[in-house]
Amino acid sequence: MAVLEITWNDPRALARALTLVESGTPEGQALLRDAFPHTGQAFTLGVTGPPGSGKSSLINRLLEETRQRWGPLAVLAIDPSSSFTGGALLGDRVRMQQHAGQPDVFIRSMATRGQLGGLAAATADALLLLDAAGFRTIFLETAGVGQNEIDVVGAADATLLVLAPGFGDAVQTLKAGILEIADVYVVNKADRPEAEQTARQLQEMLTLAEKTRQRPVILCSALEGRGVAELMEVLAQLRGRKRPTRQAELWRRRLRQLYCEQMLARLPEEALERAAHEVALRRANPYEIVESWVRS
Amino acid sequence: MAVLEITWNDPRALARALTLVESGTPEGQALLRDAFPHTGQAFTLGVTGPPGSGKSSLINRLLEETRQRWGPLAVLAIDPSSSFTGGALLGDRVRMQQHAGQPDVFIRSMATRGQLGGLAAATADALLLLDAAGFRTIFLETAGVGQNEIDVVGAADATLLVLAPGFGDAVQTLKAGILEIADVYVVNKADRPEAEQTARQLQEMLTLAEKTRQRPVILCSALEGRGVAELMEVLAQLRGRKRPTRQAELWRRRLRQLYCEQMLARLPEEALERAAHEVALRRANPYEIVESWVRS
Repeated sequence: MAVLEITWNDPRALARALTLVESGTPEGQALLRDAFPHTGQAFTLGVTGPPGSGKSSLINRLLEETRQRWGPLAVLAIDPSSSFTGGALLGDRVRMQQHAGQPDVFIRSMATRGQLGGLAAATADALLLLDAAGFRTIFLETAGVGQNEIDVVGAADATLLVLAPGFGDAVQTLKAGILEIADVYVVNKADRPEAEQTARQLQEMLTLAEKTRQRPVILCSALEGRGVAELMEVLAQLRGRKRPTRQAELWRRRLRQLYCEQMLARLPEEALERAAHEVALRRANPYEIVESWVRS
Repeated sequence: MAVLEITWNDPRALARALTLVESGTPEGQALLRDAFPHTGQAFTLGVTGPPGSGKSSLINRLLEETRQRWGPLAVLAIDPSSSFTGGALLGDRVRMQQHAGQPDVFIRSMATRGQLGGLAAATADALLLLDAAGFRTIFLETAGVGQNEIDVVGAADATLLVLAPGFGDAVQTLKAGILEIADVYVVNKADRPEAEQTARQLQEMLTLAEKTRQRPVILCSALEGRGVAELMEVLAQLRGRKRPTRQAELWRRRLRQLYCEQMLARLPEEALERAAHEVALRRANPYEIVESWVRS
């Protein structure tokens, strides 16, 4: 089986395998099928937050100790395809690559793929492959806090939301989406004067939203290292919890996507092309066409 | 046929029909199948741009004359499910509702739906229904300029991008996404001093990006009415152009989605549930399960 040759200490073979998987081809699917039995060992942490909150610097701070404590480590960075402020990611990536000299730290960027399921599906596939390759920690970094990012970090075992100081008021409007899915919150750049106030506002909001579950809010400074030890302890605790219910929820969605992808692959391209043109000219009814495809 | 009773001058029946269609139920699909032969008459204009650029005020300015020139008019506003700055939409909507006293101006807000295709699919369905109901112009308003918004306005016949003055520098980072898909650009709030400079920067960027096609950049003031006549003329020209190639492209994607939705509807819910749990516990291989579903 090809996949058994894909391990964390052969980064070039791994990169090739990831490209195959990201392309969504039948070869990629076969690779994933063979890889799946070797998965289930990695801890995946989604790291998300608004642009400029210092996600990459924070991950940089965690790399060394995470690697020493738990073994091979990968960073999968999801670059938004279009964003006002997503441009900083590349620079951070370059800094992170300083670690890439070590064979047990693997760094990969991913952008958008195809139509169905899109980036979230491609991310889930890549995580499986990295898991099978023997990485024990995978940081899944996304820039932004929109629906796409929520979908992407949904594939992670736990989620870390990074905010910059002075974000207190804006947090109000964040509520709807990302606040709920995070397991731990970091107010980064703790050296800034507004940091403590932001952490307090965030804490109050979380207490209001959910009285039973206490989720930690940690003041960190990626620059000075403050709060990093505390964060590492929280991450160690999160590793301990496996959540089969959440996993089942993720797989319910993923199985539907996979089924769609495979069914679509069986639809003749010429038939689709012809139907699209007929419908565009109003010579055929799309709903009747689809009904006939489903029946056949 | 039920759909023949759905016309622009019965807004309550129309609202019920839209709810059915948005829910993605079989009844909604049947409604769309019956509605389709009555479509193809409406001109749909996607109106997009960053929050605060004054999209709703501009649409408000266009309502009266559009209605008089071309007949029944609908505004379909897509509310982002999660966004830092999407909150202004509701207030604008209230102002717009002043027109709703007239039976030939119909206003509707939509939020996210289901998983597959999501908001873009639901929007395309709603547009078809409004078209069949006899609306001759449909403004499709989205807040924001991310991938979701690009997908949503992709269903429109033409796209108008609205920017506020002072946006010149930020336009650089916009390039990747929304700039290319627009057919006409408005720099709104033309009374502000930076407006002309922003329009010039935008024009330069467009000329650089595309030397052959000239796309108009119009300075408008929704407040004072400046530039509105010029914009109306551009919209009149855009109405004249039908683009069967683009329509075919949209239908190619939509047919795939519809096929997926229908195939998924045939997948027994219990089988999916059981499979998801087995996979989450690593007792079954998801890729093998899906292969067996496809073969059956």
